[in-house]
Amino acid sequence: MTKVAVFMGSASDEDLMKPCAEILDSLGVSYLFTVTSAHRTPERTEALVSELEAGGCQVFICAAGMAAHLAGAVAARTTRPVLGVPLAASPLGGMDALLATVQMPPGFPVGTLALDKAGAKNAAWLAAQILALSDPALAQRLKDERAGFLASVEKAAAKVERADAERRAGKKGTS
Amino acid sequence: MTKVAVFMGSASDEDLMKPCAEILDSLGVSYLFTVTSAHRTPERTEALVSELEAGGCQVFICAAGMAAHLAGAVAARTTRPVLGVPLAASPLGGMDALLATVQMPPGFPVGTLALDKAGAKNAAWLAAQILALSDPALAQRLKDERAGFLASVEKAAAKVERADAERRAGKKGTS
Amino acid sequence: MTKVAVFMGSASDEDLMKPCAEILDSLGVSYLFTVTSAHRTPERTEALVSELEAGGCQVFICAAGMAAHLAGAVAARTTRPVLGVPLAASPLGGMDALLATVQMPPGFPVGTLALDKAGAKNAAWLAAQILALSDPALAQRLKDERAGFLASVEKAAAKVERADAERRAGKKGTS
Amino acid sequence: MTKVAVFMGSASDEDLMKPCAEILDSLGVSYLFTVTSAHRTPERTEALVSELEAGGCQVFICAAGMAAHLAGAVAARTTRPVLGVPLAASPLGGMDALLATVQMPPGFPVGTLALDKAGAKNAAWLAAQILALSDPALAQRLKDERAGFLASVEKAAAKVERADAERRAGKKGTS
Amino acid sequence: MTKVAVFMGSASDEDLMKPCAEILDSLGVSYLFTVTSAHRTPERTEALVSELEAGGCQVFICAAGMAAHLAGAVAARTTRPVLGVPLAASPLGGMDALLATVQMPPGFPVGTLALDKAGAKNAAWLAAQILALSDPALAQRLKDERAGFLASVEKAAAKVERADAERRAGKKGTS
Amino acid sequence: MTKVAVFMGSASDEDLMKPCAEILDSLGVSYLFTVTSAHRTPERTEALVSELEAGGCQVFICAAGMAAHLAGAVAARTTRPVLGVPLAASPLGGMDALLATVQMPPGFPVGTLALDKAGAKNAAWLAAQILALSDPALAQRLKDERAGFLASVEKAAAKVERADAERRAGKKGTS
Amino acid sequence: MTKVAVFMGSASDEDLMKPCAEILDSLGVSYLFTVTSAHRTPERTEALVSELEAGGCQVFICAAGMAAHLAGAVAARTTRPVLGVPLAASPLGGMDALLATVQMPPGFPVGTLALDKAGAKNAAWLAAQILALSDPALAQRLKDERAGFLASVEKAAAKVERADAERRAGKKGTS
Amino acid sequence: MTKVAVFMGSASDEDLMKPCAEILDSLGVSYLFTVTSAHRTPERTEALVSELEAGGCQVFICAAGMAAHLAGAVAARTTRPVLGVPLAASPLGGMDALLATVQMPPGFPVGTLALDKAGAKNAAWLAAQILALSDPALAQRLKDERAGFLASVEKAAAKVERADAERRAGKKGTS
Repeated sequence: MTKVAVFMGSASDEDLMKPCAEILDSLGVSYLFTVTSAHRTPERTEALVSELEAGGCQVFICAAGMAAHLAGAVAARTTRPVLGVPLAASPLGGMDALLATVQMPPGFPVGTLALDKAGAKNAAWLAAQILALSDPALAQRLKDERAGFLASVEKAAAKVERADAERRAGKKGTS
Repeated sequence: MTKVAVFMGSASDEDLMKPCAEILDSLGVSYLFTVTSAHRTPERTEALVSELEAGGCQVFICAAGMAAHLAGAVAARTTRPVLGVPLAASPLGGMDALLATVQMPPGFPVGTLALDKAGAKNAAWLAAQILALSDPALAQRLKDERAGFLASVEKAAAKVERADAERRAGKKGTS
Repeated sequence: MTKVAVFMGSASDEDLMKPCAEILDSLGVSYLFTVTSAHRTPERTEALVSELEAGGCQVFICAAGMAAHLAGAVAARTTRPVLGVPLAASPLGGMDALLATVQMPPGFPVGTLALDKAGAKNAAWLAAQILALSDPALAQRLKDERAGFLASVEKAAAKVERADAERRAGKKGTS
Repeated sequence: MTKVAVFMGSASDEDLMKPCAEILDSLGVSYLFTVTSAHRTPERTEALVSELEAGGCQVFICAAGMAAHLAGAVAARTTRPVLGVPLAASPLGGMDALLATVQMPPGFPVGTLALDKAGAKNAAWLAAQILALSDPALAQRLKDERAGFLASVEKAAAKVERADAERRAGKKGTS
Repeated sequence: MTKVAVFMGSASDEDLMKPCAEILDSLGVSYLFTVTSAHRTPERTEALVSELEAGGCQVFICAAGMAAHLAGAVAARTTRPVLGVPLAASPLGGMDALLATVQMPPGFPVGTLALDKAGAKNAAWLAAQILALSDPALAQRLKDERAGFLASVEKAAAKVERADAERRAGKKGTS
Repeated sequence: MTKVAVFMGSASDEDLMKPCAEILDSLGVSYLFTVTSAHRTPERTEALVSELEAGGCQVFICAAGMAAHLAGAVAARTTRPVLGVPLAASPLGGMDALLATVQMPPGFPVGTLALDKAGAKNAAWLAAQILALSDPALAQRLKDERAGFLASVEKAAAKVERADAERRAGKKGTS
Repeated sequence: MTKVAVFMGSASDEDLMKPCAEILDSLGVSYLFTVTSAHRTPERTEALVSELEAGGCQVFICAAGMAAHLAGAVAARTTRPVLGVPLAASPLGGMDALLATVQMPPGFPVGTLALDKAGAKNAAWLAAQILALSDPALAQRLKDERAGFLASVEKAAAKVERADAERRAGKKGTS
Repeated sequence: MTKVAVFMGSASDEDLMKPCAEILDSLGVSYLFTVTSAHRTPERTEALVSELEAGGCQVFICAAGMAAHLAGAVAARTTRPVLGVPLAASPLGGMDALLATVQMPPGFPVGTLALDKAGAKNAAWLAAQILALSDPALAQRLKDERAGFLASVEKAAAKVERADAERRAGKKGTS
């Protein structure tokens, strides 16, 4: 059963959204990773939402650039949670997609994440957090992930501190 | 027969869009002035587009604020020209509605006009210009309107020049 | 048991956030509506998150203006879903709060809603949608709400259409 | 007979605007694709508009960057529909050209499309939609184009879904 | 003989531009203060520029809001210096007029001043500075004006310092 | 002896900057609160900086709007810490003053605070924090201030929670 | 005798400003092309302005990036015309330099040109236009330059039209 | 004893922040250069602040991108001066990090510097200026650095002037 649908508006969004799939995968969350468009295929989008909702899909993740309407179009067709990932696909640095995704009118929320890959990853994490409310094993996996952050930051800190110490020592050595 | 459909996303947009109706009216263009929403009533919007298109409606004008999807949703359902009027309905000064309206992906153009009342008026003018391509009388009315501009600017110029002259004279008189 | 925590960074945010409480209330969702600050009371914020999480709180809603860190600070302390409502509390029209809320780094998602009251309402709706995934009665109430939209838009449409017809008739009557 | 004039402000805009010509060409719409400038050659621009209008040109497409005045200058000289394509030709990401094109004062509409190539394409589509109002064969071609979208999105979806499945399978295979 | 032409795009700009006239007046610079529009009256604008240039007008000041093309249109018709005053006449806070005025292409400079009244005043000052290059008496008046600044700032400083001292004393008095 | 200089570019900035003086006053930090301008009185500004620096002034706070150069001009004349308060004094919402204050080139730092009153207050706090590094009594007062925040937030929280409870109870009472 | 001073804030601005020197050179306008900084060398800047002004320099062109104060610092020290060229030297796309240059307070105008090379060129043109007010030969050269624009645009138009014709013919040839 | 703590939110910020370490180093200011995160390691950040403060650390420099909360999180935990360096780490050109860093609420100042390397350097300079208030030798070094600027600008000026002279001479030579 597909728990999370990951929609992107165009095949060219695949690279930016792959990290979303990889995180869902690593957490053992079943998902559909596909292309559908608010404008080019409104009926397909509508049909996918209906089918997936009927099949038990819990969360919809929608990624799009420019006048990013995909998340809004999905939000208009379901009362399940919809998450939006704005993509920077024009010279405006993603400001167009961000505002078109986040500024939804009352009654049709789109929980909007950061632009591009950071948002792709966070959409996966937020979807998992939502599912984890009724899935204790998943909730535990999310907590375990957090525990790993301390080690990774400490490792990065050690590396940066060592490089700085070497830079200083090297300078002395050469003087 | 309705030649132009004027859709707004909410009844609260009525005041900003009234000038659009007034101009269409003054030009003798038949129109429908109504409320429909991309998110709250997607089926109604879709049905209205189909009916109006079948009934001979030539141009769709769509006004909305925030993540303004109405024009895009209409553009996804018709191959008739769609014009968009972004409304400044949030603290962001209308930048949200402008980008959500104008940055449409290839294949689904929305001819976007200025924000708020200026755009409401220009949507009416542009719709009339489109209809006038096959309506010589309307084309003539549009040309006549233009002729009136010179007189109105000359009148404004005279008034401003006179006020400036009086200001200078007054200053001299009092000195 | 509190299902949703609604945090705001300052008592002055109360008016903008009241609609959030009213919607949760109308949907029968238990909530806490309180003030806590990422900067002025970091320990209180941290303690509240721990207590509420232990007590079964499922979703955290955080509203703040300017360099809006409250949602991020909460997201750093829980793996439950965090929703952010950016408030326009400076001359920058809310752009500061929007970017400080939505642009979270990977691993710490904040599902961001629209600015000000629209976002306050949508945070309530999205929280309810999340809770409804395991609460069929609430899911049904959310679907029922949607059904009401069509009637309200049709009523608004009728009112706007009638006012336009009267304006046209009145103009004829006076001419 | 030229039905559509495609003006660009500089020869350096040729690459961005070529897709506009290609779409008009593929739809069998006769057009002129040329360079003229609001500032460098105001008389040439004015003369071109007069000649083309006299010769039956129905729609003017104007593309320019920076303080993009070309569409406005043409709109001041004709009552035929004018469409604007803002080009990102400065470090400001096209925001200059977008605002200089779209924010026209009442009476002189410029139906503005997206920035750069997306706008170049959509200007062609919108011009064709306008011409199609009195050209049933062209109207049919536009509808046929739409039909092709579903197939192309389904193909893209299949490709993206397959790549994701392979990624997952590959991961399993290597583990 | 008119040395400076002050054009504004609409009679509604009169209040914002009045300080421009007042400063020119106070400096004894002859000027014309009038309305003309790049879009509504392109021929009038063109004719005014020709006549004024022939009559010895040295500097053109052009004020306009939104897609502010007036300065650019004048710059296209003269090689005399053109100064632009962008006006904040839309919900975008004047960013539209600023970019449409300042981002002129090579060969057609518009010396752009600040938004609204600050720019109106500075256009007068800059025009006077330009004229003063060949008018020693005017050059001297401009230098004299500067001398007055020190006194006015010192007076303001004294007032602000005194108010602060009183506030502090008052606080002590009441404690 | 004056420990902190508070400069504002114009007497009209007095209201926005008064909270800065009040906080310095309440912390027992000696200060000068005055007007000086980077453009109108560059020599006065330069002389004030020299005199104050010679007299033992430790920190310079500079508040200005629009192209806010005051802080930068002071930073060019001293190696003591300079803090900048950008003021929203144009239709651009303070973005002009913020960027003109914060984007200083290497070697001439301006520690920039928030726009308007929030920044005025924080400039006072940051100046006090700097002075407190060599003033243990002041350091203690700053720590004591922080202790007061918890009580004030708890009081605000109690008030907001009570108002929400009353609203809910009232609704029940009237139903 | 140096008629125009071209100041840039840093040697790294040389490439962007070279076109300014080349145009002044081609017009036979004597100029100084040098580096001076508002912050690093305020006294040098001030001394240069005094010397150049005494030596007959008529126009100051100042180019700088980030919190671009150079033009303002010069404007504070002279009543000769000052022109500003904002440079895009930070990740903000030049918006910082543009606002820091153009938003000058009343009394200290900086005639601001476009960002980067377009502005560098236009500063040269505007300086020449100012000098030409009392130099008929230069005025004639400026008029002659304009005459050349028509030929260059017609050549560009012919090239673009030919390329489009070949593209169309080629397509037919290969089909 | 560590006088300055330089925190960055991620190891990927190392290159942008290295100039900060190099300047502190060259001035003989002891510092810690490390990684810690507001979101990934809030406890580590808090513990580092406490330890460093106890150990005599005087100034905290915090660099982060996107929704840059690190400086704010540190400011919430200390009353020592906190300086912020916003990093451009998303498609928004650093506007997100700038606003999230600078727009702090009253009581929790973050002295914000320019984006990226310019800010990294200026954070070092400002930290040194703060320390120099009670370290006369450091104060002297800062003054000496300033003296070097004049020579470096004069050298740059000579180079630019010479290159321009050669360009002109070369042109003559080839003609």
